[in-house]
Amino acid sequence: MTDPAVQNAAAKADVMVNPALLAASMIDERAPDIVEALNDMPVELAVAVLLQLPPDRAVEVLDQPGLEREPELVTQLPRETAAKLLGGVSADRVAEIFRQVKEPHRSELLTLLDADTRVNIRRLLEYPKDTAGSIMTTEFASVPSTYTVQQTLDYLRHVASSRETVYAIYVLDPASKKLVRTITLRRLITGDPQAPVLSVARPGRLIIAAPLMDREDVARLISKYDLLAVPVVDHGRVIGIVTVDDIIDAMVQKSTEEVQKFGGMAAIHDSYMEVGFWQMMKKRGGWLCALFLSEMLTASAMQGYEGELEKAIVLTLFIPLIMSSGGNSGSQATSLLIRALALRELVVKDWWRVALREIPTGLALGVMLGLVGIVRISLWQYLGFYDYGEHWMLIALTVAAALVGIVMFGSLTGSMLPFILQWIGFDPASASAPFVATLVDVTGLVIYFTVASMILRGTLL
Amino acid sequence: MTDPAVQNAAAKADVMVNPALLAASMIDERAPDIVEALNDMPVELAVAVLLQLPPDRAVEVLDQPGLEREPELVTQLPRETAAKLLGGVSADRVAEIFRQVKEPHRSELLTLLDADTRVNIRRLLEYPKDTAGSIMTTEFASVPSTYTVQQTLDYLRHVASSRETVYAIYVLDPASKKLVRTITLRRLITGDPQAPVLSVARPGRLIIAAPLMDREDVARLISKYDLLAVPVVDHGRVIGIVTVDDIIDAMVQKSTEEVQKFGGMAAIHDSYMEVGFWQMMKKRGGWLCALFLSEMLTASAMQGYEGELEKAIVLTLFIPLIMSSGGNSGSQATSLLIRALALRELVVKDWWRVALREIPTGLALGVMLGLVGIVRISLWQYLGFYDYGEHWMLIALTVAAALVGIVMFGSLTGSMLPFILQWIGFDPASASAPFVATLVDVTGLVIYFTVASMILRGTLL
Repeated sequence: MTDPAVQNAAAKADVMVNPALLAASMIDERAPDIVEALNDMPVELAVAVLLQLPPDRAVEVLDQPGLEREPELVTQLPRETAAKLLGGVSADRVAEIFRQVKEPHRSELLTLLDADTRVNIRRLLEYPKDTAGSIMTTEFASVPSTYTVQQTLDYLRHVASSRETVYAIYVLDPASKKLVRTITLRRLITGDPQAPVLSVARPGRLIIAAPLMDREDVARLISKYDLLAVPVVDHGRVIGIVTVDDIIDAMVQKSTEEVQKFGGMAAIHDSYMEVGFWQMMKKRGGWLCALFLSEMLTASAMQGYEGELEKAIVLTLFIPLIMSSGGNSGSQATSLLIRALALRELVVKDWWRVALREIPTGLALGVMLGLVGIVRISLWQYLGFYDYGEHWMLIALTVAAALVGIVMFGSLTGSMLPFILQWIGFDPASASAPFVATLVDVTGLVIYFTVASMILRGTLL
Repeated sequence: MTDPAVQNAAAKADVMVNPALLAASMIDERAPDIVEALNDMPVELAVAVLLQLPPDRAVEVLDQPGLEREPELVTQLPRETAAKLLGGVSADRVAEIFRQVKEPHRSELLTLLDADTRVNIRRLLEYPKDTAGSIMTTEFASVPSTYTVQQTLDYLRHVASSRETVYAIYVLDPASKKLVRTITLRRLITGDPQAPVLSVARPGRLIIAAPLMDREDVARLISKYDLLAVPVVDHGRVIGIVTVDDIIDAMVQKSTEEVQKFGGMAAIHDSYMEVGFWQMMKKRGGWLCALFLSEMLTASAMQGYEGELEKAIVLTLFIPLIMSSGGNSGSQATSLLIRALALRELVVKDWWRVALREIPTGLALGVMLGLVGIVRISLWQYLGFYDYGEHWMLIALTVAAALVGIVMFGSLTGSMLPFILQWIGFDPASASAPFVATLVDVTGLVIYFTVASMILRGTLL
């Protein structure tokens, strides 16, 4: 009797090399699961499996935003097959794939698409990245306002399989084709079949997006009004829709970018293990160098206090402690304000209200750390862990006073930085923890040595 | 003629004090917009306006997750009115409100609800926070598998207004009431009216959530399979559903928490301007103190090198520069790995693969910064900005070598920290930039002084 595990492994190895068997084993899986399996295969095998899948399943697979290495997959498929499959994929997704395909493949593939699709894709590709126009799909359900509820239902039954969503239906003026109202399938099925379709429309203003609206503002609309889709309207006409699942993908990507930027690096779109060594160096090295060059100012600042340092070596012991406290309080304030600005809880003109809150908060936090610092120095002196000399009380006072100033300055700088970035037209999320720490470090040193020279003049200095 | 702006202001002032007029002016607005207006009013006025709105609109308003100060609003409404309104609100939202209402108000309100609702809410309140059970709604559409497509449509028409969503319909076994299949309204409307409801079901496995599944895992299911709702199933029976809009709210909240935690503070749920002074102190002060206490180790470490410091004051000049580089590279690595773990791109057992990538990356980044450091010191020496003494080349070499070691150590520590946290059962997102910087700082000093004593022995030291 053979070991079942061995049998299993043998069967698996057999399936692994035979794309037809592999495709057959996947046929009942859901598209996102097939996508995960394909992502784990070498590109050549994935292409072979894709060719063995029934065309409608292959289209579904290409339609998934989770699919990786689309440019390679699409360009390694026979040209005609690729064009035929892409003809079935929703327009927003085809545009997303085309954005990644390099020339000459892109033009070659485009010319093989049927004329309507080609025009559509070309238009989508023209919208700037991350706008409503660039992520919208052009397949949506619309009816003239002269339709009855029953006519609308019949129409939906007919087109359900070819539209990305039928849960939102756009009622257009029959003459001008302009958007009159949006109705939901939910309300439609509760309506009297013979009544005009507008009878089931919800009162209240239309929620629409402009083609150049930022992706995040579209996300905010969908989330605020709990919509399944929002129409993208240009000169009164619906040119596409953005659906809730596009927005979820956008939100996940945005979260990743926010955390990575806050960590002090350029955002990376691929998953960690897929990023090549040189790309990783580029994304991290650039910011690391910029921060390093700015941080060099600390060395220059310290050169200016060399006289003080020689007289009171003891002062150097607390430099890392004091500087990190400034950076930490700044990093806290920045993280708070980045999110408050991203969620539109605050706008640029609220900066002074924030400053008025951060000054007392920073003061209180600084006093707290200052007291802890005094206790630490006194304890070490009393318990004999270290001898700070006869002026130890003045040293403790210097450290405490410097902490108050630095934490207050750190909180204020950290909270104002996102406002300044927004004001000069940058994303407030470009403010990173290392960026704030670097800003605070030089000033922190200046505050520390200024306080020291005031308190210790005539004794140590 | 009176100035129109003045007239306008007068009319506004009049509306402001008259809840009935205020309510009338809002009646055609969408619920999320009414919520925004109420959030900006004093609680007493908001309660008065809520009482003036038609009950169905008031229910819609209470149903919005964006509504703030719900405990105050609900407890200041007359008890009977509050109970009547809450009876109309979806169960998941009522549970969310009740979680915030303090005793004895909570029990008083609960007893006034009708028996069915009360049992429902009690059950929802028992599920731990952030699980599928705690955010699900118990109002969903289900039909026995003996129904035809037409019967199902008739049923939906009837219940559409009382169910949170009718876009997903759960087909149950008529005897055991266990979930057989989920069908979408989209497929239902395309079906032959006389065919059994199961004829429109999609093949493939059922996507379900367990009651104790983490909210983020539910979000991942919904996002992966592009669902509008996922059924929460206990012993084969559907006990509730989690809808896509619950998940969007959860994702926004999660993003905020992630950024705030990464900034080195406890997560805050209220918006920035609403958090009181003492709460702010608590959320920020705790971590700030913990980091300060750990950072004190740097002072102790420096005490150990006092002899070296006295001999070579010049070494102190580069301490801030070198330490911040370690913190920055660590913060970059941590932000990368937090997201990779959150998105399940990597799991705990991949730690060694990451370590094998981070060591060469850290080495290369360290060499890069080291070269910049050598150039800086050489330039200053040549151009006469500062005189590092006769051994300036050895000092430059010390700084460069220390940078290589520290950046490599920082990258490795920063990338391993999220794995360690996940492994011991914490959220990897608890790893913050200040936390990593603090971890790296003490070791950074030790590396610096060790390198210095090796390179400078016999010359400066």
